[in-house]
Parts: sequence; C-alpha cells; structure tokens
Amino acid sequence: MEQGLLNNLVESLCCLPGVGRKSAQRMAFHLLERNRSGGLHLAEALDKAMQGIGECHLCRTFSEKTICSRCSDPARDQSILCIVEMPSDIVALSTVDYKGLFFVLKGRLSPIDGIGPHEIGLDILEQRLAEGQVREIILATNATVEGQATAHYIAEMGKKLGIDVMKIAQGVPLGGELEYIDSNTLSHAFKSRVRY
Amino acid sequence: MEQGLLNNLVESLCCLPGVGRKSAQRMAFHLLERNRSGGLHLAEALDKAMQGIGECHLCRTFSEKTICSRCSDPARDQSILCIVEMPSDIVALSTVDYKGLFFVLKGRLSPIDGIGPHEIGLDILEQRLAEGQVREIILATNATVEGQATAHYIAEMGKKLGIDVMKIAQGVPLGGELEYIDSNTLSHAFKSRVRY
Repeated sequence: MEQGLLNNLVESLCCLPGVGRKSAQRMAFHLLERNRSGGLHLAEALDKAMQGIGECHLCRTFSEKTICSRCSDPARDQSILCIVEMPSDIVALSTVDYKGLFFVLKGRLSPIDGIGPHEIGLDILEQRLAEGQVREIILATNATVEGQATAHYIAEMGKKLGIDVMKIAQGVPLGGELEYIDSNTLSHAFKSRVRY
Repeated sequence: MEQGLLNNLVESLCCLPGVGRKSAQRMAFHLLERNRSGGLHLAEALDKAMQGIGECHLCRTFSEKTICSRCSDPARDQSILCIVEMPSDIVALSTVDYKGLFFVLKGRLSPIDGIGPHEIGLDILEQRLAEGQVREIILATNATVEGQATAHYIAEMGKKLGIDVMKIAQGVPLGGELEYIDSNTLSHAFKSRVRY
C-alpha cells in the first residue's frame, strides 16, 4: 500500500505502547472498514486530551484544572499523603480504601540518568511537608532498586521534619504460590514475619 | 479518575480492535506521560485518514484518488483479476508475486444478514467482466463457508461470460505438522492430491 494517508496512520498508531506494525495495520483497516466515526471521535479525544490535560499544582497528577478534584475535596484527610511514582499508580491504588491525598513524583531518583531530587519535585514536596499540615506520609514507590532509593530519600526528609513515615507492605502477593515466587521476595517475607 | 478529557480518551481508545479498558488506560497514560507530540500526530493522522480515504472506483480498495495507483499502473496485467473479500486481504497477498489487478468485495454473501450480490458489488463486477478485458479471474475469498459460497457465485458468473475461473489452492499449510491440522483440511488435501 503505497498510500500516504494510510501509511501515515499506520505509522502513527505504532506510537501506542504494545502496538507494532502488524497490529497498527489491523487497527487502521478496522477503523476504515467498520468504524470511521469512532476513528474521528478518537482523533478529537486525543487532540483535546493532549492539549487540555495539565497537572494539578498540589499533587502533580494529570488534571484539567489547576487543583485536581481529589486535592480540592474537603472530605479527604489533608494530613495523610501517599507518595507514588506515576499518575497511573494512583489509578492502580484507586481500589484501596484510602481517604488521604496523593503526591506524584513523575519519576524516580536515578542519578545515572541525571534525575535528581529537583527533577521529581522533591523540593516542592519538602516545601509542602514543611507547611505542617501533613502528619503522615505513606511511601508507595515501586519495589525496584530506584523506587526504593527514592523512598529512602523521602523517608529521611520526612523524619527530619518530624512526620510519621510509613511504607506499603512488601511480601508474598495474595493468592501467590511459594513455588513460583522469587527468592528475594521470599527471604524478605520470611525476615519480615509478623505475629499470626 | 473522574476527569472528562482523560476518561473520554480512554473510552475512545477502546474502539480500537483488541484494546480493552485496561490497555486503553495504559495507552492514554503512556501518551500523556511520555509522548504528547506522538498523540497529537496520531490525532491528525486519524482525522485526515478517516476523512480523506475513499475507495477506488475500479477495484473498491481504499484509495485517496478516484482510481488507485494499482489500477492505474500500466505495468500490471489488466486481463487477470484477483477477487478478495477485504482491502486487508490485498495487503496479506502483497508478498505474492502477482502482476494482475484486484477486486475487493468488502464483504461476503450472507443472505441471513441481508447481504446479497448487490451489497458486495457483484453487479459492478459483472459489468466489468462483461467489458471483455478480463480473461482470467482468481478467486481468493476466505476459506469459510460464506467465503466459499461467494466464490461459487462468482465462478458461475465468470463461466457464463466465458472467462477462465481459477481459485487459490487449499490444503496443508507449508510448515504444518499433520498432527495439528484439522480433519476437514486433511481430507480435502488427501482428495485433492497431485502428482509428485
């Protein structure tokens, strides 16, 4: 198919995660053959979202407004702050019964890539913690080496300011069979055993 | 996330084949977090493609022009016509060494769904065959019941007009192990055995 628009569409679809040339082609044909109005609607939604979604000035998650609906909700406990790496982590945690606020780093400390405290908004976080309203922070960065290093940095910061620092539990996932769990997780779970 | 634009984007992405709510969310976050320019580019490509791609008046495949580049290519053999169900089938056949033309039905005969000869352009095809330029047709509809019924209908039409009617071979796929091939294919391949 040496056609400009079709080729251009297929290539543009490849920018979606998990979509290679073959899937992109299937998507393009599907839209052209069966759902042109859906395609037009998607074009409009993409355009509006890419241009209209900024970030909340308080928690740094995606928001159309200066302060997102979560941060401006008076029913939420302003004294607890859960710290996550990415906005998608808030979605992952949305099934959890938690009524406090969030703070999104949009990254993790990674000196080798030139990502220091400033790049992930730790100066903003420090300022916020210093204001005194937050009394507890819950570290929910990823359980990777960089995520844990970032958590450690924030924990030191919180302790200096006299704030309760908690982190989400690590161990065997619910429903997990010991046989299939990696040895690092197992030894951590064993060392961190709690009274039954 | 009770946000209008983000929610709207996630729902719109669900119109892509094979994309459910979870993947759509992942795609939306990916674009917002890492590739806004890619998202904008995709929006533009979608919009242009949905509005700018019509169909070739001769072969009925997707084309930006009234006559597609394949149909207007003088190097192609105008006397052979390969008949396929969908434009995507032409792409699937593009690795085949074939220098004739195509005709796309955009469907298959399916009386139960109200799809008769007129809905898949068989009147246009008959007119074209009657013009006398086409001397051979190659049936390449899908090997499904409906695809084969459609092929049978076209074969009768072609024979009446004194045109050579061929169809692509059916049998054991190359590289296929007999153990894993369905019995219908096997018995067809056995009956249609050819001299070695």
